[in-house]
Amino acid sequence: MMNDAFYDVLRRAGEMMLKSEAAAAVYEKSGHANFVTETDIAVQQFLLEELHRLYPSALFMAEEESEHRLSDAMTFIIDPIDGTTNYFRHRACSMVSVGAVEGKKPVFGAIYDPYAGRMYHAQRGCGAWCDDQRLHVTENRLDHALIGFGSAPYNTALMPLTACSLGAILPRALDIRRTGSACMELCDIAAGRSDAHFEWQLQPWDYCAGTLLVEEAGGRCGNILGGDVTYDAAIPHLAGNAACFEELRQLLQEVRAGMATD
Amino acid sequence: MMNDAFYDVLRRAGEMMLKSEAAAAVYEKSGHANFVTETDIAVQQFLLEELHRLYPSALFMAEEESEHRLSDAMTFIIDPIDGTTNYFRHRACSMVSVGAVEGKKPVFGAIYDPYAGRMYHAQRGCGAWCDDQRLHVTENRLDHALIGFGSAPYNTALMPLTACSLGAILPRALDIRRTGSACMELCDIAAGRSDAHFEWQLQPWDYCAGTLLVEEAGGRCGNILGGDVTYDAAIPHLAGNAACFEELRQLLQEVRAGMATD
Repeated sequence: MMNDAFYDVLRRAGEMMLKSEAAAAVYEKSGHANFVTETDIAVQQFLLEELHRLYPSALFMAEEESEHRLSDAMTFIIDPIDGTTNYFRHRACSMVSVGAVEGKKPVFGAIYDPYAGRMYHAQRGCGAWCDDQRLHVTENRLDHALIGFGSAPYNTALMPLTACSLGAILPRALDIRRTGSACMELCDIAAGRSDAHFEWQLQPWDYCAGTLLVEEAGGRCGNILGGDVTYDAAIPHLAGNAACFEELRQLLQEVRAGMATD
Repeated sequence: MMNDAFYDVLRRAGEMMLKSEAAAAVYEKSGHANFVTETDIAVQQFLLEELHRLYPSALFMAEEESEHRLSDAMTFIIDPIDGTTNYFRHRACSMVSVGAVEGKKPVFGAIYDPYAGRMYHAQRGCGAWCDDQRLHVTENRLDHALIGFGSAPYNTALMPLTACSLGAILPRALDIRRTGSACMELCDIAAGRSDAHFEWQLQPWDYCAGTLLVEEAGGRCGNILGGDVTYDAAIPHLAGNAACFEELRQLLQEVRAGMATD
Protein backbone atom coordinates (compact mmCIF):
# COMPACT_ATOMS: atom_id res chain seq x y z
CA MET A 1 0.00 0.00 0.00
CA MET A 2 2.76 2.45 0.90
CA ASN A 3 5.50 3.30 -1.52
CA ASP A 4 9.02 4.66 -1.15
CA ALA A 5 7.77 8.25 -1.29
CA PHE A 6 5.73 7.65 1.88
CA TYR A 7 8.71 6.35 3.85
CA ASP A 8 10.83 9.16 2.48
CA VAL A 9 8.41 11.69 4.01
CA LEU A 10 8.79 10.06 7.44
CA ARG A 11 12.59 10.01 7.16
CA ARG A 12 12.63 13.68 6.21
CA ALA A 13 10.38 14.44 9.20
CA GLY A 14 12.93 12.63 11.40
CA GLU A 15 15.75 14.68 9.91
CA MET A 16 13.81 17.85 10.77
CA MET A 17 13.59 16.62 14.37
CA LEU A 18 17.30 15.97 14.68
CA LYS A 19 18.30 19.24 13.00
CA SER A 20 16.11 21.36 15.31
CA GLU A 21 16.74 19.51 18.57
CA ALA A 22 19.48 21.69 20.02
CA ALA A 23 17.47 24.90 19.85
CA ALA A 24 13.75 24.00 19.77
CA ALA A 25 11.58 26.37 21.81
CA VAL A 26 9.27 24.62 24.31
CA TYR A 27 5.72 25.70 25.18
CA GLU A 28 3.34 24.34 27.84
CA LYS A 29 -0.06 23.09 26.68
CA SER A 30 -3.04 22.63 28.96
CA GLY A 31 -2.73 20.10 31.78
CA HIS A 32 0.18 18.81 33.84
CA ALA A 33 3.55 18.23 32.11
CA ASN A 34 2.08 18.70 28.64
CA PHE A 35 4.52 20.31 26.26
CA VAL A 36 4.84 21.13 22.61
CA THR A 37 7.93 22.39 20.85
CA GLU A 38 8.03 24.49 17.72
CA THR A 39 9.45 21.37 16.07
CA ASP A 40 6.26 19.36 16.84
CA ILE A 41 4.31 22.05 14.98
CA ALA A 42 6.75 22.26 12.07
CA VAL A 43 7.04 18.50 11.64
CA GLN A 44 3.28 18.07 11.76
CA GLN A 45 2.79 20.78 9.14
CA PHE A 46 5.38 19.08 6.93
CA LEU A 47 3.71 15.66 7.32
CA LEU A 48 0.23 17.05 6.60
CA GLU A 49 1.38 18.81 3.45
CA GLU A 50 3.53 16.01 2.06
CA LEU A 51 1.06 13.21 2.81
CA HIS A 52 -1.79 15.26 1.34
CA ARG A 53 0.27 15.63 -1.81
CA LEU A 54 0.81 11.85 -1.98
CA TYR A 55 -2.72 10.85 -0.90
CA PRO A 56 -5.04 13.74 -1.89
CA SER A 57 -8.25 12.00 -0.80
CA ALA A 58 -7.04 10.95 2.67
CA LEU A 59 -8.25 12.68 5.82
CA PHE A 60 -6.04 13.53 8.79
CA MET A 61 -6.13 13.43 12.57
CA ALA A 62 -2.97 14.89 14.10
CA GLU A 63 -1.87 15.54 17.70
CA GLU A 64 -1.15 19.26 17.45
CA GLU A 65 -4.52 20.20 15.97
CA SER A 66 -7.36 21.76 17.90
CA GLU A 67 -10.07 19.30 16.79
CA HIS A 68 -9.97 15.53 16.39
CA ARG A 69 -12.68 13.63 14.50
CA LEU A 70 -12.59 10.20 12.92
CA SER A 71 -14.89 9.09 10.10
CA ASP A 72 -14.97 5.77 8.20
CA ALA A 73 -12.89 7.26 5.38
CA MET A 74 -9.19 6.55 5.02
CA THR A 75 -7.53 8.75 7.68
CA PHE A 76 -3.91 9.27 8.63
CA ILE A 77 -3.46 9.49 12.42
CA ILE A 78 -0.26 11.42 13.06
CA ASP A 79 2.05 12.06 15.99
CA PRO A 80 4.80 14.33 14.68
CA ILE A 81 7.03 13.76 17.75
CA ASP A 82 6.01 10.99 20.13
CA GLY A 83 8.05 11.61 23.28
CA THR A 84 8.18 15.41 23.29
CA THR A 85 9.68 15.64 26.78
CA ASN A 86 12.40 13.17 25.74
CA TYR A 87 12.98 15.35 22.70
CA PHE A 88 13.67 18.62 24.48
CA ARG A 89 15.62 16.79 27.23
CA HIS A 90 17.87 15.20 24.57
CA ARG A 91 17.11 11.62 25.60
CA ALA A 92 17.36 10.24 22.05
CA CYS A 93 14.01 8.48 22.39
CA SER A 94 11.33 10.17 20.29
CA MET A 95 9.58 8.87 17.19
CA VAL A 96 7.56 10.00 14.18
CA SER A 97 4.34 7.98 13.99
CA VAL A 98 1.84 7.70 11.14
CA GLY A 99 -1.04 5.23 11.20
CA ALA A 100 -3.61 4.79 8.43
CA VAL A 101 -7.14 3.92 9.53
CA GLU A 102 -10.00 2.86 7.28
CA GLY A 103 -13.45 2.00 8.62
CA LYS A 104 -11.95 3.11 11.94
CA LYS A 105 -9.50 0.17 11.92
CA PRO A 106 -5.77 0.49 11.22
CA VAL A 107 -4.67 -0.88 7.86
CA PHE A 108 -1.12 0.42 7.91
CA GLY A 109 1.33 1.93 10.38
CA ALA A 110 4.86 3.26 10.33
CA ILE A 111 7.04 4.55 13.16
CA TYR A 112 10.39 6.14 12.38
CA ASP A 113 13.15 6.33 14.99
CA PRO A 114 15.44 9.08 13.69
CA TYR A 115 18.12 8.47 16.36
CA ALA A 116 18.62 4.84 15.35
CA GLY A 117 17.63 5.48 11.72
CA ARG A 118 15.14 2.60 11.94
CA MET A 119 11.76 2.36 10.18
CA TYR A 120 9.18 0.16 11.91
CA HIS A 121 6.22 -0.68 9.67
CA ALA A 122 3.24 -3.00 9.44
CA GLN A 123 0.42 -3.59 7.02
CA ARG A 124 -2.70 -5.52 8.08
CA GLY A 125 -2.08 -9.20 7.28
CA CYS A 126 1.52 -8.73 6.11
CA GLY A 127 3.51 -8.90 9.33
CA ALA A 128 5.51 -6.36 11.33
CA TRP A 129 8.93 -5.21 10.25
CA CYS A 130 11.89 -3.11 11.31
CA ASP A 131 13.44 -2.05 7.99
CA ASP A 132 13.69 -5.43 6.22
CA GLN A 133 13.68 -7.57 9.35
CA ARG A 134 10.50 -9.41 10.36
CA LEU A 135 9.47 -8.81 13.99
CA HIS A 136 7.96 -11.27 16.47
CA VAL A 137 6.75 -10.77 20.02
CA THR A 138 8.15 -12.98 22.79
CA GLU A 139 6.39 -15.88 24.50
CA ASN A 140 7.29 -14.77 28.03
CA ARG A 141 4.55 -15.26 30.57
CA LEU A 142 3.84 -12.51 33.11
CA ASP A 143 6.35 -13.75 35.71
CA HIS A 144 9.14 -13.38 33.14
CA ALA A 145 7.72 -10.31 31.43
CA LEU A 146 9.28 -6.86 31.23
CA ILE A 147 6.39 -4.38 31.45
CA GLY A 148 6.61 -0.87 30.04
CA PHE A 149 4.18 1.73 31.25
CA GLY A 150 3.07 5.25 30.57
CA SER A 151 2.28 7.53 33.49
CA ALA A 152 -0.54 9.46 31.79
CA PRO A 153 1.33 12.56 32.99
CA TYR A 154 -1.23 15.05 31.65
CA ASN A 155 -3.98 13.64 33.86
CA THR A 156 -3.15 13.97 37.56
CA ALA A 157 -6.39 12.17 38.54
CA LEU A 158 -4.99 8.92 37.13
CA MET A 159 -1.68 9.02 39.02
CA PRO A 160 -2.81 7.02 42.07
CA LEU A 161 -4.15 4.33 39.70
CA THR A 162 -0.84 4.22 37.85
CA ALA A 163 1.12 3.92 41.11
CA CYS A 164 -1.16 1.13 42.40
CA SER A 165 -0.87 -0.68 39.07
CA LEU A 166 2.91 -0.65 39.41
CA GLY A 167 2.68 -1.90 42.99
CA ALA A 168 0.58 -4.84 41.78
CA ILE A 169 2.75 -5.58 38.76
CA LEU A 170 6.22 -5.39 40.35
CA PRO A 171 6.00 -8.62 42.39
CA ARG A 172 4.20 -10.49 39.59
CA ALA A 173 6.41 -9.55 36.63
CA LEU A 174 10.12 -9.46 35.86
CA ASP A 175 10.45 -5.68 36.09
CA ILE A 176 9.09 -2.40 34.73
CA ARG A 177 10.41 0.21 32.32
CA ARG A 178 9.36 3.73 31.30
CA THR A 179 10.99 5.17 28.20
CA GLY A 180 8.71 8.19 27.84
CA SER A 181 7.64 7.27 24.28
CA ALA A 182 4.59 5.04 23.81
CA CYS A 183 5.66 4.44 20.21
CA MET A 184 9.08 3.23 21.35
CA GLU A 185 7.37 0.93 23.89
CA LEU A 186 5.15 -0.62 21.22
CA CYS A 187 8.13 -1.09 18.89
CA ASP A 188 9.98 -2.73 21.81
CA ILE A 189 7.14 -5.24 22.30
CA ALA A 190 6.96 -6.02 18.58
CA ALA A 191 10.74 -6.52 18.47
CA GLY A 192 10.82 -8.69 21.62
CA ARG A 193 12.75 -6.17 23.73
CA SER A 194 9.85 -6.01 26.19
CA ASP A 195 6.67 -8.02 26.70
CA ALA A 196 3.84 -5.60 27.42
CA HIS A 197 2.94 -1.93 27.93
CA PHE A 198 0.02 -0.17 29.57
CA GLU A 199 -1.11 3.42 30.06
CA TRP A 200 -4.40 4.39 31.69
CA GLN A 201 -4.98 7.21 29.21
CA LEU A 202 -3.36 7.10 25.82
CA GLN A 203 -4.27 9.07 22.70
CA PRO A 204 -4.93 7.49 19.28
CA TRP A 205 -1.87 9.17 17.71
CA ASP A 206 0.28 7.59 20.45
CA TYR A 207 -0.92 4.04 19.78
CA CYS A 208 -2.41 3.87 16.28
CA ALA A 209 0.61 2.73 14.26
CA GLY A 210 2.12 0.84 17.21
CA THR A 211 -1.04 -1.18 17.87
CA LEU A 212 -0.98 -2.59 14.35
CA LEU A 213 2.76 -3.23 14.68
CA VAL A 214 2.28 -5.27 17.89
CA GLU A 215 -0.68 -7.20 16.44
CA GLU A 216 1.18 -8.00 13.21
CA ALA A 217 4.16 -9.17 15.30
CA GLY A 218 1.87 -11.75 16.91
CA GLY A 219 0.85 -9.75 19.99
CA ARG A 220 -2.46 -8.48 21.31
CA CYS A 221 -3.81 -5.00 22.05
CA GLY A 222 -7.00 -3.89 23.75
CA ASN A 223 -8.77 -1.49 26.04
CA ILE A 224 -7.59 -2.33 29.59
CA LEU A 225 -11.21 -2.33 30.74
CA GLY A 226 -12.24 -4.80 28.03
CA GLY A 227 -12.87 -4.91 24.30
CA ASP A 228 -10.84 -3.89 21.32
CA VAL A 229 -8.74 -0.81 20.75
CA THR A 230 -10.73 2.10 19.32
CA TYR A 231 -9.21 5.03 17.48
CA ASP A 232 -11.46 8.06 17.88
CA ALA A 233 -10.51 9.15 21.42
CA ALA A 234 -8.15 8.41 24.33
CA ILE A 235 -8.52 4.97 25.94
CA PRO A 236 -6.84 2.91 28.68
CA HIS A 237 -4.49 1.03 26.34
CA LEU A 238 -2.80 -2.33 26.84
CA ALA A 239 -0.45 -4.12 24.47
CA GLY A 240 1.41 -7.34 25.04
CA ASN A 241 2.54 -10.67 23.74
CA ALA A 242 -0.22 -13.29 23.61
CA ALA A 243 1.22 -15.16 26.62
CA CYS A 244 0.85 -12.36 29.18
CA PHE A 245 -1.84 -10.06 27.74
CA GLU A 246 -4.93 -11.55 29.43
CA GLU A 247 -3.26 -12.07 32.82
CA LEU A 248 -2.01 -8.49 32.82
CA ARG A 249 -5.38 -7.11 31.70
CA GLN A 250 -7.12 -8.97 34.52
CA LEU A 251 -4.55 -7.76 37.07
CA LEU A 252 -5.02 -4.13 35.98
CA GLN A 253 -8.82 -4.48 36.09
CA GLU A 254 -8.55 -5.84 39.64
CA VAL A 255 -6.36 -2.90 40.68
CA ARG A 256 -8.92 -0.43 39.35
CA ALA A 257 -11.84 -2.27 40.94
CA GLY A 258 -9.96 -2.31 44.28
CA MET A 259 -9.41 1.43 44.13
CA ALA A 260 -13.02 2.16 43.17
CA THR A 261 -14.22 0.46 46.36
CA ASP A 262 -11.58 1.96 48.68
CA MET B 1 45.15 9.82 37.83
CA MET B 2 43.90 7.51 35.10
CA ASN B 3 45.80 7.07 31.88
CA ASP B 4 44.84 5.97 28.39
CA ALA B 5 45.51 2.32 29.25
CA PHE B 6 42.76 2.47 31.90
CA TYR B 7 40.14 3.80 29.48
CA ASP B 8 41.30 1.30 26.88
CA VAL B 9 40.47 -1.53 29.31
CA LEU B 10 36.92 -0.21 29.73
CA ARG B 11 36.44 0.16 25.98
CA ARG B 12 37.64 -3.41 25.40
CA ALA B 13 35.22 -4.59 28.11
CA GLY B 14 32.42 -2.81 26.23
CA GLU B 15 33.47 -4.49 22.99
CA MET B 16 33.26 -7.87 24.73
CA MET B 17 29.70 -7.01 25.75
CA LEU B 18 28.60 -6.11 22.24
CA LYS B 19 30.30 -9.12 20.65
CA SER B 20 28.64 -11.60 23.03
CA GLU B 21 25.19 -10.03 23.20
CA ALA B 22 23.38 -12.12 20.60
CA ALA B 23 24.20 -15.46 22.24
CA ALA B 24 24.96 -14.83 25.94
CA ALA B 25 23.58 -17.55 28.22
CA VAL B 26 21.47 -16.22 31.11
CA TYR B 27 21.37 -17.66 34.66
CA GLU B 28 19.16 -16.73 37.62
CA LYS B 29 20.85 -15.66 40.84
CA SER B 30 19.16 -15.60 44.24
CA GLY B 31 16.16 -13.32 44.71
CA HIS B 32 13.48 -12.01 42.35
CA ALA B 33 14.46 -11.03 38.79
CA ASN B 34 18.20 -11.29 39.53
CA PHE B 35 20.15 -12.49 36.54
CA VAL B 36 23.72 -12.95 35.45
CA THR B 37 24.91 -13.78 31.98
CA GLU B 38 28.13 -15.56 31.08
CA THR B 39 29.21 -12.19 29.67
CA ASP B 40 28.95 -10.51 33.11
CA ILE B 41 31.35 -13.16 34.42
CA ALA B 42 33.75 -12.91 31.46
CA VAL B 43 33.81 -9.10 31.43
CA GLN B 44 34.39 -8.98 35.18
CA GLN B 45 37.26 -11.47 34.92
CA PHE B 46 38.77 -9.38 32.13
CA LEU B 47 38.47 -6.14 34.15
CA LEU B 48 39.95 -7.72 37.29
CA GLU B 49 42.95 -9.09 35.40
CA GLU B 50 43.67 -6.01 33.30
CA LEU B 51 43.21 -3.48 36.12
CA HIS B 52 45.34 -5.62 38.43
CA ARG B 53 48.09 -5.53 35.79
CA LEU B 54 47.85 -1.71 35.57
CA TYR B 55 47.39 -1.10 39.34
CA PRO B 56 49.03 -4.06 41.15
CA SER B 57 48.46 -2.69 44.65
CA ALA B 58 44.77 -1.87 44.22
CA LEU B 59 42.04 -3.98 45.84
CA PHE B 60 38.77 -4.92 44.16
CA MET B 61 35.08 -5.15 44.97
CA ALA B 62 33.08 -6.51 42.06
CA GLU B 63 29.42 -7.42 41.62
CA GLU B 64 29.80 -11.03 40.50
CA GLU B 65 31.99 -12.10 43.42
CA SER B 66 30.78 -14.03 46.43
CA GLU B 67 32.20 -11.67 49.09
CA HIS B 68 32.26 -7.88 49.25
CA ARG B 69 34.53 -6.04 51.73
CA LEU B 70 35.78 -2.49 51.68
CA SER B 71 38.92 -1.31 53.49
CA ASP B 72 40.53 2.14 53.51
CA ALA B 73 42.97 1.07 50.81
CA MET B 74 42.55 2.09 47.18
CA THR B 75 39.79 -0.19 45.86
CA PHE B 76 38.17 -0.52 42.45
CA ILE B 77 34.42 -1.04 42.72
CA ILE B 78 33.29 -2.76 39.52
CA ASP B 79 30.03 -3.49 37.76
CA PRO B 80 30.95 -5.42 34.61
CA ILE B 81 27.47 -4.97 33.08
CA ASP B 82 25.12 -2.52 34.78
CA GLY B 83 21.70 -3.28 33.31
CA THR B 84 21.95 -7.04 32.84
CA THR B 85 18.26 -7.47 32.02
CA ASN B 86 18.54 -4.73 29.40
CA TYR B 87 21.58 -6.57 28.05
CA PHE B 88 19.93 -9.92 27.40
CA ARG B 89 16.74 -8.20 26.21
CA HIS B 90 18.77 -6.23 23.64
CA ARG B 91 17.64 -2.83 24.91
CA ALA B 92 20.97 -1.10 24.11
CA CYS B 93 21.15 0.37 27.61
CA SER B 94 23.87 -1.34 29.68
CA MET B 95 27.13 0.13 30.93
CA VAL B 96 30.56 -0.88 32.22
CA SER B 97 31.22 0.92 35.52
CA VAL B 98 34.48 1.25 37.46
CA GLY B 99 34.83 3.48 40.50
CA ALA B 100 38.00 3.99 42.52
CA VAL B 101 37.55 4.47 46.27
CA GLU B 102 40.24 5.50 48.75
CA GLY B 103 39.53 5.97 52.46
CA LYS B 104 36.06 4.69 51.50
CA LYS B 105 35.39 7.79 49.37
CA PRO B 106 35.35 7.83 45.56
CA VAL B 107 38.33 9.58 43.98
CA PHE B 108 37.67 8.55 40.40
CA GLY B 109 34.89 7.01 38.33
CA ALA B 110 34.34 5.97 34.75
CA ILE B 111 31.24 4.60 33.03
CA TYR B 112 31.46 3.34 29.48
CA ASP B 113 28.39 3.13 27.25
CA PRO B 114 29.40 0.68 24.51
CA TYR B 115 26.23 1.26 22.45
CA ALA B 116 26.84 5.00 22.10
CA GLY B 117 30.64 4.62 22.32
CA ARG B 118 30.69 7.26 25.08
CA MET B 119 33.06 7.41 28.06
CA TYR B 120 31.71 9.25 31.11
CA HIS B 121 34.42 10.06 33.66
CA ALA B 122 35.06 12.15 36.75
CA GLN B 123 37.94 12.73 39.11
CA ARG B 124 37.37 14.32 42.53
CA GLY B 125 37.74 18.08 42.12
CA CYS B 126 38.22 18.01 38.34
CA GLY B 127 34.65 18.02 37.02
CA ALA B 128 32.51 15.47 35.20
CA TRP B 129 32.98 14.67 31.56
CA CYS B 130 31.52 12.74 28.63
CA ASP B 131 34.53 12.12 26.42
CA ASP B 132 35.97 15.65 26.15
CA GLN B 133 32.73 17.50 26.94
CA ARG B 134 32.24 18.99 30.42
CA LEU B 135 28.94 17.97 32.07
CA HIS B 136 26.63 20.08 34.23
CA VAL B 137 23.42 19.16 36.03
CA THR B 138 20.27 21.20 35.41
CA GLU B 139 18.75 23.78 37.72
CA ASN B 140 15.19 22.43 37.40
CA ARG B 141 13.23 22.45 40.63
CA LEU B 142 11.07 19.43 41.54
CA ASP B 143 7.95 20.63 39.71
CA HIS B 144 9.92 20.71 36.45
CA ALA B 145 12.12 17.71 37.24
CA LEU B 146 12.28 14.43 35.34
CA ILE B 147 12.81 11.72 37.97
CA GLY B 148 14.43 8.38 37.18
CA PHE B 149 13.91 5.49 39.55
CA GLY B 150 15.08 1.98 40.18
CA SER B 151 12.53 -0.62 41.29
CA ALA B 152 14.93 -2.59 43.55
CA PRO B 153 13.60 -5.63 41.67
CA TYR B 154 15.60 -8.19 43.66
CA ASN B 155 13.88 -7.19 46.92
CA THR B 156 10.13 -7.80 46.78
CA ALA B 157 9.68 -6.34 50.30
CA LEU B 158 10.53 -2.88 48.97
CA MET B 159 8.03 -2.91 46.09
CA PRO B 160 5.12 -1.27 47.95
CA LEU B 161 7.49 1.50 49.07
CA THR B 162 8.64 2.02 45.48
CA ALA B 163 5.05 2.18 44.21
CA CYS B 164 4.02 4.65 46.95
CA SER B 165 7.07 6.78 46.19
CA LEU B 166 5.99 7.01 42.56
CA GLY B 167 2.46 7.91 43.58
CA ALA B 168 3.83 10.77 45.67
CA ILE B 169 6.30 11.96 43.04
CA LEU B 170 4.07 11.89 39.95
CA PRO B 171 1.87 14.89 40.84
CA ARG B 172 4.82 16.85 42.25
CA ALA B 173 7.35 16.37 39.43
CA LEU B 174 7.39 16.63 35.66
CA ASP B 175 7.39 12.88 35.02
CA ILE B 176 9.23 9.65 35.78
CA ARG B 177 11.54 7.37 33.80
CA ARG B 178 13.00 3.91 34.31
CA THR B 179 15.81 2.88 31.99
CA GLY B 180 16.86 -0.26 33.86
CA SER B 181 20.47 0.90 34.31
CA ALA B 182 21.35 2.93 37.41
CA CYS B 183 24.62 3.96 35.74
CA MET B 184 22.72 5.30 32.73
CA GLU B 185 20.40 7.22 35.08
CA LEU B 186 23.33 8.84 36.90
CA CYS B 187 24.99 9.74 33.59
CA ASP B 188 21.65 11.24 32.49
CA ILE B 189 21.55 13.48 35.58
CA ALA B 190 25.16 14.59 35.13
CA ALA B 191 24.47 15.37 31.46
CA GLY B 192 21.23 17.24 32.18
CA ARG B 193 18.97 14.69 30.45
CA SER B 194 17.16 14.08 33.74
CA ASP B 195 17.14 15.80 37.13
CA ALA B 196 17.17 13.10 39.82
CA HIS B 197 17.13 9.35 40.46
CA PHE B 198 16.23 7.23 43.47
CA GLU B 199 16.25 3.54 44.32
CA TRP B 200 15.38 2.18 47.75
CA GLN B 201 18.13 -0.44 47.60
CA LEU B 202 21.12 0.11 45.37
CA GLN B 203 24.50 -1.64 45.50
CA PRO B 204 27.85 0.20 45.63
CA TRP B 205 28.90 -1.09 42.19
CA ASP B 206 25.68 0.38 40.77
CA TYR B 207 26.31 3.88 42.13
CA CYS B 208 30.02 4.26 42.94
CA ALA B 209 31.29 5.80 39.71
CA GLY B 210 27.97 7.53 38.97
CA THR B 211 27.79 9.24 42.36
CA LEU B 212 31.12 10.97 41.77
CA LEU B 213 30.01 11.85 38.24
CA VAL B 214 26.82 13.55 39.50
CA GLU B 215 28.67 15.38 42.29
CA GLU B 216 31.40 16.61 39.94
CA ALA B 217 28.68 17.80 37.53
CA GLY B 218 27.35 20.04 40.32
CA GLY B 219 24.71 17.69 41.71
CA ARG B 220 24.18 16.04 45.07
CA CYS B 221 23.97 12.42 46.22
CA GLY B 222 23.04 10.91 49.56
CA ASN B 223 21.31 8.20 51.51
CA ILE B 224 17.56 8.79 51.10
CA LEU B 225 17.14 8.40 54.86
CA GLY B 226 19.81 11.01 55.58
CA GLY B 227 23.57 11.41 55.50
CA ASP B 228 26.17 10.85 52.84
CA VAL B 229 26.54 8.00 50.40
CA THR B 230 28.55 5.08 51.80
CA TYR B 231 30.27 2.49 49.70
CA ASP B 232 30.55 -0.74 51.68
CA ALA B 233 26.97 -2.07 51.34
CA ALA B 234 23.62 -1.42 49.66
CA ILE B 235 21.85 1.82 50.65
CA PRO B 236 18.69 3.74 49.70
CA HIS B 237 20.37 5.99 47.13
CA LEU B 238 19.29 9.40 45.89
CA ALA B 239 21.02 11.59 43.31
CA GLY B 240 19.85 14.87 41.90
CA ASN B 241 20.62 18.38 40.87
CA ALA B 242 21.11 20.80 43.78
CA ALA B 243 17.73 22.49 43.11
CA CYS B 244 15.51 19.42 43.70
CA PHE B 245 17.64 17.08 45.85
CA GLU B 246 16.49 18.15 49.33
CA GLU B 247 12.81 18.50 48.39
CA LEU B 248 12.83 15.02 46.84
CA ARG B 249 14.70 13.51 49.80
CA GLN B 250 12.14 14.95 52.20
CA LEU B 251 9.24 13.71 50.06
CA LEU B 252 10.68 10.18 49.97
CA GLN B 253 11.29 10.22 53.73
CA GLU B 254 7.66 11.26 54.27
CA VAL B 255 6.44 8.42 52.06
CA ARG B 256 8.44 5.89 54.08
CA ALA B 257 7.30 7.36 57.40
CA GLY B 258 3.69 7.23 56.21
CA MET B 259 4.00 3.56 55.28
CA ALA B 260 5.69 2.64 58.58
CA THR B 261 2.68 3.93 60.52
CA ASP B 262 0.01 2.44 58.26
